[in-house]
Amino acid sequence: MLVVAGFAFKKLVIFGVGLIGGSLARALRERAPGEVSEAGEIVGVGRSPASVARALELGVIDRAAALDDDAQLRDALAGADVVLLAAPVAQTGPLLARIAPRLDAATIVTDAGSTKSDVVAAARAALGARIAQFVPGHPIAGRESSGVEAALPDLYVGRNVVLCPLDENPAEAVARIDAMWRASGADVRRMTPAQHDRVFASVSHLPHVLSFALVEQILGEADAELKFSYAAGGFRDFTRIAASNPEMWRDVCVANRAALLDELDGYTRVLARLRAAIDAGDGAALEAVFERSRAARSAWQERGGKPAGAGQPATETIKQ
Amino acid sequence: MLVVAGFAFKKLVIFGVGLIGGSLARALRERAPGEVSEAGEIVGVGRSPASVARALELGVIDRAAALDDDAQLRDALAGADVVLLAAPVAQTGPLLARIAPRLDAATIVTDAGSTKSDVVAAARAALGARIAQFVPGHPIAGRESSGVEAALPDLYVGRNVVLCPLDENPAEAVARIDAMWRASGADVRRMTPAQHDRVFASVSHLPHVLSFALVEQILGEADAELKFSYAAGGFRDFTRIAASNPEMWRDVCVANRAALLDELDGYTRVLARLRAAIDAGDGAALEAVFERSRAARSAWQERGGKPAGAGQPATETIKQ
Repeated sequence: MLVVAGFAFKKLVIFGVGLIGGSLARALRERAPGEVSEAGEIVGVGRSPASVARALELGVIDRAAALDDDAQLRDALAGADVVLLAAPVAQTGPLLARIAPRLDAATIVTDAGSTKSDVVAAARAALGARIAQFVPGHPIAGRESSGVEAALPDLYVGRNVVLCPLDENPAEAVARIDAMWRASGADVRRMTPAQHDRVFASVSHLPHVLSFALVEQILGEADAELKFSYAAGGFRDFTRIAASNPEMWRDVCVANRAALLDELDGYTRVLARLRAAIDAGDGAALEAVFERSRAARSAWQERGGKPAGAGQPATETIKQ
Repeated sequence: MLVVAGFAFKKLVIFGVGLIGGSLARALRERAPGEVSEAGEIVGVGRSPASVARALELGVIDRAAALDDDAQLRDALAGADVVLLAAPVAQTGPLLARIAPRLDAATIVTDAGSTKSDVVAAARAALGARIAQFVPGHPIAGRESSGVEAALPDLYVGRNVVLCPLDENPAEAVARIDAMWRASGADVRRMTPAQHDRVFASVSHLPHVLSFALVEQILGEADAELKFSYAAGGFRDFTRIAASNPEMWRDVCVANRAALLDELDGYTRVLARLRAAIDAGDGAALEAVFERSRAARSAWQERGGKPAGAGQPATETIKQ
């Protein structure tokens, strides 16, 4: 039994030991070593033994298992307290279909997917009556780099983790996942899947689409090279997220289609309003919008981008 | 006569001694002190004596003059080698109208405005036949903070300065302004005013409008507070420029209306294409766009955002 800051487990199984899964494993191992009362095991499962070999080599996990090997998978899942799905979100359904027949009744399954309504639908389809064992979650953390080499023990410190408990979830199951993320240093908050998907369509998925779109637009123009050659700091920050993983963002856009289209249409209406003001040379209307945005953006920055009254103060500053 | 890295002047007059004007003054003074052969004077002109008093106090300028005081203005301009306009771009016309009747025939006037077609039109109107003395320019440098306190001697090192010479400019006048910016550490490049305005509408003005628009959109929604409270790193970088000066960006949008509307319309067409792909669940089309954008953005980052074959390598890295 490994007990870390209130979270106790004998066996934690992580499907996909990359940045997200690897950072949780490192956090639970390294953040509170004084509280370890007895060995708790962390098992990594990958599509092949090779894909989790590096995690084993780095000591991030204690044991590796291949998803496609029935015996290894059964052995990995036997007696697990918690299973975390930390693979790309489109794999949630197929993964749960593999896991379901081998899942102990006492095991709690959670995930780290960027979208939640589609994950819940996939989980209901795969788990059927065992859906009560699945507690949907989303840690709001990331880095430009990915893979287990990029995993950090303090990736989640002061970050938000959103849980979207289902009506079927026993309170103890939700409390256990809550405790696991708090042990990693995160602030845990709760939303419904629909609320989650609307919020992240707005503040994360839409900005990614808008950023990709700007680079795509420039690429389509005859003077693209000239334009890129004069792009400076504003362009750099605006398009940083256009360097994100195309496969991941393709999946997010497809998975969160409805909420994303709502936000995109709302955004297009704001752009049309600004276009009319520019076309009319209406400086007062433009300044009013820019001033309102500047004030809101500055206030957000000042409170460190955290919910009002939440955890620790901001440590990040705007890069000059 | 102050000679700095090939740029010699007896008297440099700066209208608006803030970040941009103050940094040029500091660069010429501080970057190559060994080359000073004789005292050259830097005069700052502001709307009131108080507005340039701080620059004088900090030693950024040698003398301060008030724009509204005819005698002080005449005295400031007498015998000037170079005049730099570094006030907000909408003030270019009124400033030149004040300067024109007091301008020595040998003085070269340049500016630091973010737009060029409108500046050239204003200069032609104010200077008439003396337009040959005006060499339009735009240093591509900035910081979040403004004012003379934010001025840095190395603000222009490795940055681009775009000159947009007019047919009427004598080659020696353009060479002189070129030498002045090179002395500050900048790479100097040339474009036509129309080319300049198209390029910066695309890589600077449009991203600012898009960033302001995202914050404006969120503010207009009932769950704005909830959304802001979950915004994280992607939102932070995407909206950093939404904390920019509203008055400056109002002026830029109005001044560069035609080019900005062209870019905005092109962007809206790209968004409509992405919307259709999301609506159709066409993951392949989305991934193709995202992958193309990611590759172009990464290549731009790797060559340090500089024109092919230009000066020094990148020193900035992506903030994690």
